[in-house]
Amino acid sequence: MEKLSIVKIGGNIIENQTALSTFLKLFSNLKGKKILVHGGGKRATQIASKLGIESKMINGRRITDAKTLEVITMVYGGLVNKTIVANLQALHSNTIGLSGADANSITSQKRLVTDIDFGFVGDVTSVNHHAINKLIQADFTPVFCAITHDKNGQLLNTNADTISSELAIGMSQLYQVALYYCFELNGVLKDINDKNTVIKQLNSKSYKTLLETNIITEGMLPKLENCFYALQNGVKTIYMGNTAMLTQEDDNFTTITL
Amino acid sequence: MEKLSIVKIGGNIIENQTALSTFLKLFSNLKGKKILVHGGGKRATQIASKLGIESKMINGRRITDAKTLEVITMVYGGLVNKTIVANLQALHSNTIGLSGADANSITSQKRLVTDIDFGFVGDVTSVNHHAINKLIQADFTPVFCAITHDKNGQLLNTNADTISSELAIGMSQLYQVALYYCFELNGVLKDINDKNTVIKQLNSKSYKTLLETNIITEGMLPKLENCFYALQNGVKTIYMGNTAMLTQEDDNFTTITL
Repeated sequence: MEKLSIVKIGGNIIENQTALSTFLKLFSNLKGKKILVHGGGKRATQIASKLGIESKMINGRRITDAKTLEVITMVYGGLVNKTIVANLQALHSNTIGLSGADANSITSQKRLVTDIDFGFVGDVTSVNHHAINKLIQADFTPVFCAITHDKNGQLLNTNADTISSELAIGMSQLYQVALYYCFELNGVLKDINDKNTVIKQLNSKSYKTLLETNIITEGMLPKLENCFYALQNGVKTIYMGNTAMLTQEDDNFTTITL
Repeated sequence: MEKLSIVKIGGNIIENQTALSTFLKLFSNLKGKKILVHGGGKRATQIASKLGIESKMINGRRITDAKTLEVITMVYGGLVNKTIVANLQALHSNTIGLSGADANSITSQKRLVTDIDFGFVGDVTSVNHHAINKLIQADFTPVFCAITHDKNGQLLNTNADTISSELAIGMSQLYQVALYYCFELNGVLKDINDKNTVIKQLNSKSYKTLLETNIITEGMLPKLENCFYALQNGVKTIYMGNTAMLTQEDDNFTTITL
């Protein structure tokens, strides 16, 4: 199977002009077929605040009422997505910006209200790998923002990490997928206070040992659970680290396999 | 050549939930290959105002400083575009929302400053009909917002009427293009105060006569100049009227040919 790289970048890169510019160059130089997934939460919080809309977060997840959904649609789908697309076009990367509604690429269902009402938040129900592949086969590089739809006209806010892993799982039916989570750390760390303690290789077995010895921090736990779920569902390899790992010139990042 | 319909809707339809909903049903029922182009200026003015950004207009054109461009990118490219795409997906129209940066579909150059500095406003330099056709041939219906790019990373605000006519001209190389301008009037009127005076057929010759007798109002003049420019450059037919003309059940709209 042909290789496909799926790269996710978070808010820290998007907010920092220099970091974003450096990342976009690395991404445009990445060989082979690829997909970019971006968040944009910090910018959304800023603009919501300017519009007098309070951002409420529970466990790092945004409570998305109707007005917040409008801001998210503007910021993720408009401002951040189109700015990234235009910048990558300047770097000769023939990008096409997408939400899950575009090309009906990612559907979701509104999260059921249990003890918390997250509002217009969607949990992914399907990735239309055929539609996305049509774009890839036409030599376009999809750039996804973290918005999905329910196919009944409702846009829904969806976690960008989840979109990335679900896309990776879906595209694994057609490609050998490598998933890159770019974030502010150099990788999964043994000691959260020492950036030089990157765990270079991680698999189900060594992950179990780390869990038993309480090495994994609370913030990293859902990310890694997400990773192993993706690996169990067809994704070949997952990389976690800072954007420099895209060059793979050193091995100062975490490689996760099953 | 196969037929392609390009439909442009303006702010009056977008702002009115009922009108938009009615239009989207008509558009989704339109047979054959098609493209939608939308504005969104009124919504942009509202959101700019909430963000404390004053909207300056000269001759109905928006002066687009950096902050205004951000608002336009959020509102046209995000809020309006993704809402329309999600609603059309619910109507089984497999839409894909685009700015001119996406798929490098429409490039422009920043308007030169003469007596007026319009700011980040772009005049269309090329329509990438091959890229757009790849999407159409993959059975996607493109939905364009009124944003282009200069291929050097700069997004530019571009008049939606102009985008529509330039798209129509570009796509005429591959299709027999019908261009529909949907607006608040029933068509080009002989008497602007009487909506029952629709001029049903207009061509270069009858247009000249109307010009000589000062029948054409100032607001309609640039629109019609735009139309004849498109017709002279390969577009087959242009229709002007309210959204009901999409059904072509009566003939209460203006049909313009060369």
